[in-house]
Amino acid sequence: MLNFQIFIPTRIVFGPGKLAELGTLPLPKGKKAMVVIGESGAMIENGYLDKVQALLAKQNISTVVFDNISPNPKSDQVDEAAKIAREKGIDFIVALGGGSTIDASKAIALLTTNVGKCWDYMQAGSGGGVNPENPAAPLIAIPTTAGTGTEADQWAVINKSGGIEKISLGNDSTFPTISIVDPELMVSVPPRTTAYTGIDTFFHAVETFLSTAHQPMSDMLALEAVHLSSHYLPMAIAEGDNIEARTVMAWSSTAAGMCETLSRCISQHALEHALSAKYPDLPHGLGLAKLSVPYFKRLIPESPERFEDLAMAMGYDTQQFDENMRATVFLEGLRSLLERAGFNEESLKDYGAKEEDVAELVEIAEQTMGKLFEFTPAKMEREDLECIMSEAIAG
Amino acid sequence: MLNFQIFIPTRIVFGPGKLAELGTLPLPKGKKAMVVIGESGAMIENGYLDKVQALLAKQNISTVVFDNISPNPKSDQVDEAAKIAREKGIDFIVALGGGSTIDASKAIALLTTNVGKCWDYMQAGSGGGVNPENPAAPLIAIPTTAGTGTEADQWAVINKSGGIEKISLGNDSTFPTISIVDPELMVSVPPRTTAYTGIDTFFHAVETFLSTAHQPMSDMLALEAVHLSSHYLPMAIAEGDNIEARTVMAWSSTAAGMCETLSRCISQHALEHALSAKYPDLPHGLGLAKLSVPYFKRLIPESPERFEDLAMAMGYDTQQFDENMRATVFLEGLRSLLERAGFNEESLKDYGAKEEDVAELVEIAEQTMGKLFEFTPAKMEREDLECIMSEAIAG
Ligand SMILES: [Fe+2]
Ligand SMILES: [Fe+2]
Repeated sequence: MLNFQIFIPTRIVFGPGKLAELGTLPLPKGKKAMVVIGESGAMIENGYLDKVQALLAKQNISTVVFDNISPNPKSDQVDEAAKIAREKGIDFIVALGGGSTIDASKAIALLTTNVGKCWDYMQAGSGGGVNPENPAAPLIAIPTTAGTGTEADQWAVINKSGGIEKISLGNDSTFPTISIVDPELMVSVPPRTTAYTGIDTFFHAVETFLSTAHQPMSDMLALEAVHLSSHYLPMAIAEGDNIEARTVMAWSSTAAGMCETLSRCISQHALEHALSAKYPDLPHGLGLAKLSVPYFKRLIPESPERFEDLAMAMGYDTQQFDENMRATVFLEGLRSLLERAGFNEESLKDYGAKEEDVAELVEIAEQTMGKLFEFTPAKMEREDLECIMSEAIAG
Repeated sequence: MLNFQIFIPTRIVFGPGKLAELGTLPLPKGKKAMVVIGESGAMIENGYLDKVQALLAKQNISTVVFDNISPNPKSDQVDEAAKIAREKGIDFIVALGGGSTIDASKAIALLTTNVGKCWDYMQAGSGGGVNPENPAAPLIAIPTTAGTGTEADQWAVINKSGGIEKISLGNDSTFPTISIVDPELMVSVPPRTTAYTGIDTFFHAVETFLSTAHQPMSDMLALEAVHLSSHYLPMAIAEGDNIEARTVMAWSSTAAGMCETLSRCISQHALEHALSAKYPDLPHGLGLAKLSVPYFKRLIPESPERFEDLAMAMGYDTQQFDENMRATVFLEGLRSLLERAGFNEESLKDYGAKEEDVAELVEIAEQTMGKLFEFTPAKMEREDLECIMSEAIAG
């Protein structure tokens, strides 16, 4: 019988040009904001930081900029920013950038209103397991990539400084208060980053649809995101300034982000987090792309109807096939999407992945993201997981 | 291009037996709640009030009961309850009942934290147009009927005491903080009430799908609610204790409620509000049912593709029909649903409706709910509206 919870308190303001609303929207209380951006300088070069500061100034908000966030953001970076935020009496955080910037900002927001360090509050792996005493400071998220969906969920993925753990942190207070999803900010994303972030969206939708935690609302949002991202991702990669493709990918990302809250990702994400924790330069989306065929090949027999639904969402007429072949049409669609999105020319080995790391990688996945295995619709043995990892590294 | 806002901050706890979670869920701050119930005594007789008070007591919440809410709740009733809430220092409101009780409670919650009277804050008709200074007190909604969707939106429909106006009130703070949607509480709803509330759900979904304010998320929720309610409503009417039918109707109601926020209802609802404002004993759903065929007949030429989508959601294979006939399949489905739900045996005349009131009714609709005409995908002239109203009264 239907049984679920829906809770997504974020105000999502979506559409090309909507960044302008930052100048007029009712903002969280206070007069001092910290604007968090990535270390690459892209937000400065393309003028987005200036725009955001000007819009905030229109609302009489003074800003402090924190620009030391790396891809796969580190716990030390969160601690450094939070220290400044507390010292300067920051009222709310504005995250301007990709998934790393927004995730780091969620953790910064939590540490702005709570004592201690980021890793004290991690609930898995070597985390301190402390429950935060206070809700996080309000956060305005302004994503500049379409992928992680972090604009519509409470999860912050943080890497342990000096370790090889990549773990999610989040509670009811770490949802962004406002997310401004403006596809115009995404036209400047380079083709490979578009591919990496876009395929992440596709897998959030696929995994949350297959998850044992799925529910009616995540199902419809997931099928929408699968449908749209599988059709528009190659276009967004090939024609970066195609605003229609960027808009559809942005909506796919947000829809799949909601699914990450309403349902939960499954163990493919646990395996990938181990990969990008171990090889910090590896893009998350590339890790997923390489894991996906070996991973889903093993899951198909466990829930063939759900895979057939996914194949239909990707546009396949599964009725043309024999009944026992319909679910595997998904794999055909997946292989085609990976090829069209340029993943056949890339390998995990380019980022240092080695066959001999396989056992360690599976162990990291189970130890740091063990919860996701509980939502996976099949029990996978250690041996299965090592095979998947091994095929991903070979492929 | 896609362009929309998503904001539904309510925590929706859905499923048979979920009322029990009232005893464990984190509640709004404070120790004193007002439990609002309808005047009929049903909540007392069937033991729901006792249960709710016991669950709140488990969380050390003391309660004051306010039981003077009528169907089509009156502004005086809101004022009376709010006066008590302010005097007693109530921290939050618990609404236990149907749409009337929950709607009244939203207004009570707003008046608990603001000065003045309910009608001061109405933004249309003869309302005072005052903007509330403070957010509403937190509200926990526990619906016992499946229909209005008020558990998932910010709208409170209130009738002016001593007048013939029925107007919506609502802002960001009038969403329920928590809505516990437990279909087990709905098995005792009598057949005709099930029909009236259930058909309301169906029309929320249909109208918000056709609305010019529609967006991707309201579209998918609306088609889900149309699909489910058109199949399960007759079953819920015929077999009140069928928990599957009750559960599906409860989810349809909540899904369509979200649509009322994400999109907006259209002028069929404006016309109905005039009817049930003028004839206070008329159930809202019966008014809609009688308006619907004449109303949608006129709208079909304006957006045939959307009507075809609705017909498909109702389970019709529209491809079997000539292209220019596909949209009208919706009317066939609608007529069949109305018949299966027992509406052919009822008439607006049973509630005092008269042909000679037609002009006045249309005027009330335009004056009090004029905004909904703006979201209607066609301009309807006064003459058209009078024809629709006239057919509804004759039918
Ligand atoms: Fe991801
Ligand atoms: Fe209604």
